[in-house]
Formats: sequence, structure tokens, C-alpha cells
Amino acid sequence: MALCAFYAVWGFLLDVSVAFGPVPRMTWEHKEVQLIHFNESKVSNYSTLLLNEDKNVLYVGARDVIFALNAVNIAEKQNELHWKVTEDKRTKCAVKGKSEQTECRNYLRVLQQLNDTFLYVCGTNAFQPTCDYLNLISFELGGKNEDGKGRCPFDPAHSYTSVMVDEELYSGTPYNFLGSEPVISRHLHRSSLRTEYAIPWLNEPNFVFADVIRADPNSTDGEDDKIYFFFTEVSVEYEFVGKLLIPRIARVCKSDQGGLRILQKKWTSFLKARLICTIPDKNLIFNVINDVFILKSPTLKEPVIYGVFTPQLNDVGISAVCAYSLSAVEEVFSKGKYMQSATVEQFHIKWVQYNGEIPNPRPGACINNEARASNYMSSLNLPDKTLQFVKDHPLMDDSVTPMGDRPRLVKRDVKYTQIVVDRVRALNGTIYDVMFIGTDRGALHKAISYENGMHIIEETQLFPDFEPVQTLLLSSKTGRRYLFAASNSGVVQSPVSFCDKYTTCVDCVLARDPYCAWKPLEASCIDIFKESEMGRNWIQNIGGDASSCSDKVRENPLQHTFKHGSTAELKCSQKSNLAQVVWKFKDDVLRVESPKYRLLEKALLIFNLSEGDSGVYQCLSEEKVENKKFSQVLAKHVLELKKMQRTMVAPTTT
Amino acid sequence: MALCAFYAVWGFLLDVSVAFGPVPRMTWEHKEVQLIHFNESKVSNYSTLLLNEDKNVLYVGARDVIFALNAVNIAEKQNELHWKVTEDKRTKCAVKGKSEQTECRNYLRVLQQLNDTFLYVCGTNAFQPTCDYLNLISFELGGKNEDGKGRCPFDPAHSYTSVMVDEELYSGTPYNFLGSEPVISRHLHRSSLRTEYAIPWLNEPNFVFADVIRADPNSTDGEDDKIYFFFTEVSVEYEFVGKLLIPRIARVCKSDQGGLRILQKKWTSFLKARLICTIPDKNLIFNVINDVFILKSPTLKEPVIYGVFTPQLNDVGISAVCAYSLSAVEEVFSKGKYMQSATVEQFHIKWVQYNGEIPNPRPGACINNEARASNYMSSLNLPDKTLQFVKDHPLMDDSVTPMGDRPRLVKRDVKYTQIVVDRVRALNGTIYDVMFIGTDRGALHKAISYENGMHIIEETQLFPDFEPVQTLLLSSKTGRRYLFAASNSGVVQSPVSFCDKYTTCVDCVLARDPYCAWKPLEASCIDIFKESEMGRNWIQNIGGDASSCSDKVRENPLQHTFKHGSTAELKCSQKSNLAQVVWKFKDDVLRVESPKYRLLEKALLIFNLSEGDSGVYQCLSEEKVENKKFSQVLAKHVLELKKMQRTMVAPTTT
Repeated sequence: MALCAFYAVWGFLLDVSVAFGPVPRMTWEHKEVQLIHFNESKVSNYSTLLLNEDKNVLYVGARDVIFALNAVNIAEKQNELHWKVTEDKRTKCAVKGKSEQTECRNYLRVLQQLNDTFLYVCGTNAFQPTCDYLNLISFELGGKNEDGKGRCPFDPAHSYTSVMVDEELYSGTPYNFLGSEPVISRHLHRSSLRTEYAIPWLNEPNFVFADVIRADPNSTDGEDDKIYFFFTEVSVEYEFVGKLLIPRIARVCKSDQGGLRILQKKWTSFLKARLICTIPDKNLIFNVINDVFILKSPTLKEPVIYGVFTPQLNDVGISAVCAYSLSAVEEVFSKGKYMQSATVEQFHIKWVQYNGEIPNPRPGACINNEARASNYMSSLNLPDKTLQFVKDHPLMDDSVTPMGDRPRLVKRDVKYTQIVVDRVRALNGTIYDVMFIGTDRGALHKAISYENGMHIIEETQLFPDFEPVQTLLLSSKTGRRYLFAASNSGVVQSPVSFCDKYTTCVDCVLARDPYCAWKPLEASCIDIFKESEMGRNWIQNIGGDASSCSDKVRENPLQHTFKHGSTAELKCSQKSNLAQVVWKFKDDVLRVESPKYRLLEKALLIFNLSEGDSGVYQCLSEEKVENKKFSQVLAKHVLELKKMQRTMVAPTTT
Repeated sequence: MALCAFYAVWGFLLDVSVAFGPVPRMTWEHKEVQLIHFNESKVSNYSTLLLNEDKNVLYVGARDVIFALNAVNIAEKQNELHWKVTEDKRTKCAVKGKSEQTECRNYLRVLQQLNDTFLYVCGTNAFQPTCDYLNLISFELGGKNEDGKGRCPFDPAHSYTSVMVDEELYSGTPYNFLGSEPVISRHLHRSSLRTEYAIPWLNEPNFVFADVIRADPNSTDGEDDKIYFFFTEVSVEYEFVGKLLIPRIARVCKSDQGGLRILQKKWTSFLKARLICTIPDKNLIFNVINDVFILKSPTLKEPVIYGVFTPQLNDVGISAVCAYSLSAVEEVFSKGKYMQSATVEQFHIKWVQYNGEIPNPRPGACINNEARASNYMSSLNLPDKTLQFVKDHPLMDDSVTPMGDRPRLVKRDVKYTQIVVDRVRALNGTIYDVMFIGTDRGALHKAISYENGMHIIEETQLFPDFEPVQTLLLSSKTGRRYLFAASNSGVVQSPVSFCDKYTTCVDCVLARDPYCAWKPLEASCIDIFKESEMGRNWIQNIGGDASSCSDKVRENPLQHTFKHGSTAELKCSQKSNLAQVVWKFKDDVLRVESPKYRLLEKALLIFNLSEGDSGVYQCLSEEKVENKKFSQVLAKHVLELKKMQRTMVAPTTT
């Protein structure tokens, strides 16, 4: 059975490639590639990462401790700060029925850069969430011990997300001990704002991500910066057997100050909408969002929102990545219809499209030049009608649909947990969005979309213990492109590419990796972003066309001398999961199905050798890309008969 | 890669057994077991089967032809009748845009036993469905050419179901050319009755099964016989992204005569309810019903309804079997709440529980003694209030939930299409419901439920071309237990068990097949229902405890003489997918992971043989049942060194 494990996984991947998603071309086992690890004994739950690219520091929030690591080499610890729960608090926490050993600890959940000198940090602190200011010079806490309610969860099992925008902390997390009162709130300098505690606003949400999208500086409409939140919650508008979940995008305006009478100290700009990630004709509905990455780049007309999803129903292992344009999101919030609830037959609340009159200014809209022209200078000025409407109708009827109306990638037998996206200019100038996607088994998939399909360049086992990837960060600074991944057991730093693992030009090009190109002079596959300047004769083809390669055929065959009747084992292994191994004997393809031969994973067996078996055996890797087939000789073996044994008899079986 | 195919399938089955459903213990390839085939050249779509157990005839309805086969040996054709479409009709059909070669043919969809002399038969007849009476003596049609509308679909692609009850045909199928008007109707002697053409009654149904359940003859309430229909339709009560399907059970009363003013010539007793087949804690929702079998037996307190289901959403290959007690069904129809529709905000129709007053007599109830006592002697007498209510509220709010509140069987990587169930008394008197389940790949699973789990005894490849099993029939007459399966390409007759395939007592008992027992005297595994009387010393244990077996260890080892340095291939194969092969050398378990050995599917390779490898090798099959492990020696090999070669050198690799 052990023998079969490899075949099982491998064969299965081949099977499903047709049906659901591409097979990663390369599979890097944990020890096959150079990764840098950080973990300390007795420390667990490395759940929060914060990267300071200017200072090259990676801050890591774990259980009871914060680390500062060298972001160029995370094995180098620069600082550490233990932030433990007091004995007294731990005891009180245990009295409330929580585990003293595990839950009643301080799980760091918020690590945000407040300014050059301070980080704003929060931990669960034995179910009494507490925040403080971490002085980066002394690496000590200010001792403020602010109440962390609404900024940090009570329970390490609860969901959380936060983002720091202009020294204000925006967060999504439960507001109480039980986790039953979810809240999206703003804290710190200005007066705090939060969501209403009402089912239409937030209904058992699971927060996954928050980020700011700044208003276009070139725009003349005086739009506000907006903070977007992503979460999965229980749907009010849909019904099926049991509770249905639905992925949401919600947003608030940075300048929101709440209402004067209605929605006092509450968001006046909180709106939410469905995020659709489905393939209707295959009845695939991915309605659980696990993570989001917002790609912002000067080379992009507008930010692109990438989300990783899994299904709630009948999930026997399948994931999807959907991408959304910011304009599609803005269209829904600024022009879409609202939903309204209606009571049917006294007992039943049903949500339907609202078709009545919409107050002016538009409920939930940010204060922009148009509003100011009508003398609404702040949310505090907004008329009651507008505020009452947004209070009752926070949910949009229109949905945010993905670019291309379908997922970028659908992959069976994997659960994607995290995503980051890099934007890479290939040698020929074409720009590719390279997706790095973490799985619940500690692996990382690196994928690019290519014309109508997706290509998974490689799968890398980041964590040897197969722990889920809980956090993923990308450093895309020139010359310092790294990935940082955190799991319960540690942090891993990985380069964005493993070009040097490709030893031939064909292999280097077939990788279809925009980071890699073949440098004929050095006969090596190089990371183009590590070179000082681009070479003219470098070979790269993201389409996978390796015809420009002129690899030399290996000329060092292995010599074997064998005895009559014995068995030869000729070794040959190839790494690409998309390639097929073909054996040639005297330049003819061997029919390995015959009982004379047996093809194993990394070798060919030839039984009952006789004189006719002498000669040259070649092992070729054949890989098809876009209907072109590329062959490479992987190994050459020469078999020779041992002369003196020619007269001997074969082994007999009776 | 070809090499891996077996490992892939096998390994995968092992993997998922833990997560989703048991692995069939035995896999019988098509040619491994004795099956009887029937098919004629140029004939296809063997879609309709009718068994006359008294006369031992199997009637087969295919495209343009009806066959009568010997039900003891279906290879023996007794009669055939060609019933083709006239040239004129075919041309007209083609003019309407249908394919002359395929769709404009006569697909036999109804074959029902009217009485001893006649079958009632219907065919699509080039989109002009036509019925007729087949005289079983002359095997000729009466030439009545009755209009088959509502009895037989127009389009061979449309769904259909029918049952003959007391010389009345009850059927469910579309009523028009486009298939857009579905109907459940009664035809033949009495005045025809049908469903309303309205979404609340039938909403794009896919009919799968119909059967009668007779009133309990011992009951004193004067209840009517009821005809049950099973179908999947588009849900009105649920909403999600896209259309949601829902499995339904509907029923009408045999004595229904329609209403006088309201529901004239329509069912007054048509009610339908949801059939639930879900595992809520795993978010598995099987909401497409593919087939039903109603198990009726004198040994059963009440009939049991077996259904096979697949999911609509995110179906990457998973099926379930759910079983329902008749009393659960009757409870819902006779006491459950109704649903009602309500219009919300003018445009939206929402279905909710009806909580108002329910008219008397209860809407949809059959005329029973209680109704008669109130002077409602027939449905024609029913008050308008009751009729109007049932017209508006055909859908129950209560659902029919499965016995045990969960599926009997959930199986991954298979699509179940058909089911029949046999009731078998094992040697010790315990009665087992043996489920025979057809798949969309031409296979048959045979399963029993055993304490808290399911055991799939075997998987048999009925059709070599992997065509879906479209119809499955069981003949359970004493001494003539057979299965008949039909696909597009032919009909197959299979015994219900393959006891003689088990050659040892341990294997026979480990099969856990209630049909099979070990007969020590003959040292053979026998079908207990084929023997004239039960033997006292027969061995059977459906729990799989084979400790009563005393198989003799095989004493004919294979002798091999080998040369120094050569490779030995020791053969050993075992059939059980639940067993593990273990090799022993000189009574010690071999560690086959060492490079010295390689374990293949059906052999062990030993490389680079030397004197130390001489000795006895045993291949054992180890199978665990209920934490007991049973071992059997499958093969014994003796390796011996060829003396004269002792001085020779091993092959060299340079």
C-alpha cells in the first residue's frame, strides 16, 4: 500500500487535470528547495505578519510573543518581546471555562504600523483583548493597555482582520466574549465608529481581509478613500436546506463621522454586496471566501481584487480563485439596487429587491464634491431620510461579478487558504499577474493565467508538517522578491522562483515561469530580476515554445555489463508532472507494456536479458505545450553482454 | 503512465474510503463473471424492461422494437415485434427540426402488463407519442394507435415514468412537443385525470419512478390505495445563486375522480413534499433523485422507499442512498403543514408555511371511512373550499426525512443511477436488505448495511462499454434470483451473487455476502438459495468473523532456481480491495521498502540475488474486519541457488 501512495496521488492528479484545473508542472518537496525557516521552541501560532519594506524588517505576532526578523533572512532574529498574560487574568479566564493552557494566553492578532516609531499591537490576552504601542527603537510596549474590544477577538478561534489607514485602525472582529456580536469599527484618534448590531448589517461573519483603496488623485469628483472588508456570512437573501453562507465585500468611507441623530457613532457609509464566484453551467458555487489580495500597481489602470474561495455545499475538495475589478465593485455600490426585507405572513422575513424611491444624497455614498455642493459637508449633516435608509438597507441587490464572469482558476483536491499576487514583466514586455496561493496542507501553488487557461508553474511544500498556510505576504521590492508564509508552527521565507532547478534550456522554457530565462552563455536558467541587466540572447517563452533552445544531447551514457538471464534496472527520473517518459532502444520506442519490461516511477526493468538486449537505451521526457511536443533525453544507458557467460542457462521456474 | 492507472484507481479508493463511503471489497471485471447478454445489431436504447415472473418472460422495449426474452436465460429470444415510424411521420418530424436518423424514431417508453393477454405499450413515434395493445399470444399490436400524449414523452430525451394499477395507467411525463408542460395523469378505462398546469404543481420536473402502495387490508379506516411519484423539480421554496433543484415525492389516491366544479378532471388528491437526503454537519446536500425502489415484503412491517441521489451543486462525483419509511411519508401528507405562496412587493413570489385555517375534509386526503361518514362519498362531492385549497397548496411544508436521519450509504467518485433491493434471510435467520445499485459507468454495486456501517460486497462491471445503467430489475422468485440491467447498448442478466468465485472458507466468509456460505464437505462457497436444504455445518458470518474456518494451508510451493546476481519475480495476486499483501521470508515479515525488493501489483521482485536469499517465501493476504485480522497464504515460493554459479560476479554498473 505504501508503494501505491505516490502512484495514487500522481495518477489522480493526472485524471482530474482534464476535469478540474491544471496539474502543477513541478512538485517541490520540502527539502528539495532552499527555504529559510523561523520558529522558536515552545512558541506557536505564528499568525500575524507585518512587513516593513523600507527597514527590511518582518514583524511576527505569535502566542505571547512578538518578533522582529531580518526580512532578507528571517533566520536572523533582531528583537523579541514577550507579552504574556498575568497569572491573575489567566486564572479568571480559566474560571470562565476556557483552557488555561491554550485559550487563556495572549494571541497576537493585530500588528499595524502606526508611524515610523510605533507599531499598534493587540492580543487576545486571556479573553480580555488588549492593545498597546510597541516602540520600535526600544522594542518595548508603552504600557497603555488599551481595551482591545472590537479591535482584537476575545477568543483565539474567532476571526479577525484589520488595516491601519492614516493612523486609524479599521478592524472586523467579534465585540464580545461569546463572539456573538460582530463589529466593523474604527478606533484611535478620531471618535470611534462601528456597525449597527443587527442581522442585516452583519450575520455571523467570518472576517478574512481588509484594505484601503485610495481615491484616484487625478479625479475631480472629490471622492473619499474607502476601506474594504471581506467576509463570509450567513445569507439572509437565500434559503436552502440549512444555513447558506455567502461571501461579501463591504466598504466604509474614510471621512465618515457617523450620523447626528440616526446612526450616531455608527457608519453612515456601510454597504455590502455579494461577491460571486461560480461556474453556473457546471453548478459550481464557491460561496466561502478564505482570503483576499488587492493588487495595486502603477502598471494597472485600477486595482484588482483577488479572492480564494471554497464551496460550502458538497465540498469534497475544490477551490477557486476569482478576480474582480474595482470599477465593478464601485458600480454596485454607487449605482446598484438595494435589497429590502419584508415580513410575509407575520413570521417570515424575506429579502427582495427594493424598487421604491431612493433618498438623496444616495444612502451609503461617501461625501464627495457633489454632496458638498448641496451643502452636505460631512456625514453629520446627512438628512435623516438618507441615514434611516442606509440603516435599513445595508445590503445591495446587485452582486459583484468576477472579471470574465468566471473564476481565474478552479482546482480540485485542494483547499486554498491564502493568496498574494505579484505583477511581473516578462522578457518580451508582457505583464503577468503571478498568483501565489497557500493551501491547507502547507503547500504553495504558483500560477499564471495564459490566454484562455491557467498554468500552475509549481507546487512547493513550504511546511514539512503539512500545517495550513495561515498568512502569506509578498515582498516585491526590486531585488528582494520574497514570500513569507506563516503557519501554526513557524514562518517560512521562500524566493518567488526556483529557476536554478532547471538544468536545460528546454526545461527552463517549458517551466513557463516569467521570473526565469535561459542564459545560453552560462548555460543556466536564471532569475531575470536578480541580474543587473537584461541579456538580449536570453530565452524565455511563457507560451512554453522551447524551439529556440539548442540543448546539447548528453554524451555520457552509463555502461552496464550484464549476465544472461538477469534483470537490468535502468534509472531515469524526470520532474515535470506534465511530461511522459518514453524509452527508446536502438532509436525505436520501446513497448514497455510487454512482459519483458516494466516501467517504474524512476526506472525501467528489463527481465531475462539475452544478447538481443544489448545496445543503447535512451530515456526521453516528452512534454506537450499548445500541441507542440518537446523531447529531452534524460538518460542514456548502454547494456553489454558479459561474454564468458553466453553459454549459461536462464533461471528455471518449476 | 499506463502503469499508474491501476495504482491510481486503487490507491484513490483506499484514500477516500475513510472520508466518503466504503470501498467495494471485490471488483469483478466484465469478463471475470458469468453474465448473460442480449442485444441485436442495429438495435439501440434498450430502455424499458417489464418482467412477468409467472411466465418467466422479460419484455424489453428498445428503439423501434419490442422483445420477449426467456427470463431464465435472456439470450433466448422468444418473440420480437418491430414497431417503426411511418415514412410520412418521419418526414414530418424532420421538418419540425428533429433528427430523422435519431430522434424521429419510435422509442418504446411504456411497457405495462394490462392483463394476462395484453401489454399496454407506448412509444415516442417520431414526436407523436402513440400507445397500443400488444397481444401476447400472437405478439402483434391491436392497431388501436391511441394518442399517447401524457402517457409517453414526445422527445426521447424527456423523462417519463409509469405504473399500471388495476388496468389504469398512471404516468408522469411532458404533455407537449416542447416538453414544457409536465403532467401526472391517469388514463384508460375511467375518465382521465391530470395535474393542473401550474408552477406550484409541477415545475420542470424530471420524473424517475412511480409505484402503487396498497392500503393495509387489515386497516379499518377504509383508506384508499395510493400511487406515488418521484421526481426532481425546480424549487419554488428555496433560492440561491441560480435555479435550485429539489427531490419530491408526490401522491394521488386511486379512487380520485376529480372535482365537480373546481379541479374538474384534475386530481383532488395531488400533494407533494420534499424528500430530504442530506448530511447537514458535512454540508452534503443530495438534491437530485435518480431512481427509487419500493421494497414491499411480508417480512416488513411497512414498505420502505429506497432512493439514489446525487448533488446538484459542486458535484465532483458523489452519490447517496436514502431510505424512507412509508409511515414517515404518510405522516407528512396526512398531518403535515402546507406551504403557501405570497407576493412580496408586487414582483416577488415567496413560499412560506401556511398557518391559517385548513378546510375540512383535509385537502388532498383520500376518501376514507371518516369522509364517507360525513357523506363525502367521492371526490366529486368534496366542498369547493377543500378543492380550492388543494389547488393552491399542493406543496407540503413538512419534509420527508430518511430513516436514521441520514443516508444509508454515501459513496464518492461514483454516480448512482438505478437501485433495486432484495430482502435476504441469512443462515442465522437475520434479514438483510441487499441493495443493488447501478452506476453511470455500467457497473453494479452490491451493498448491505451492517450495524452502523455499510459494506459494499462487490462491484461488477455489467456493461463492457461503460454505458450508464438505465434500468434495473430484480427477479426474486425462489431459485430464480436474477438482476436484469439495461443500457443504451443492450440488456444483461446477472446472478445476485458469485459465491463460487471464493475458493477458501476465509474468503467466502470475509465476503460478508448473505447469499453465500461455506460448505465444508464440498470445500466450496455456495449460494444458499440454490441448495435444496440448508446444511447445519455451513459457515456464514455477515460480520466477517472467519474464525470458524479451518482452511488448509496450501502445500504446493513453486520452486525457483536462480543464478547469483539475477532478479527473481515471485507472483502473488489477491482480489480483495480491503486486504493487504504481506510477504514473509523464512516466517519473518519482509520489509519490502528496502531497495533489495520491489512490491508490484501482482508480484514481488528481489534484486541481486545471493545465497542469503535462498529459502521459503510466503505471500499472505491480511484483511481486517471489526478489529480482527484474518490471514491467508496466497502463494508459496521456494528459491534455491544454482550451485555451479556461486563464484560468479554480480553485474557491474559503471
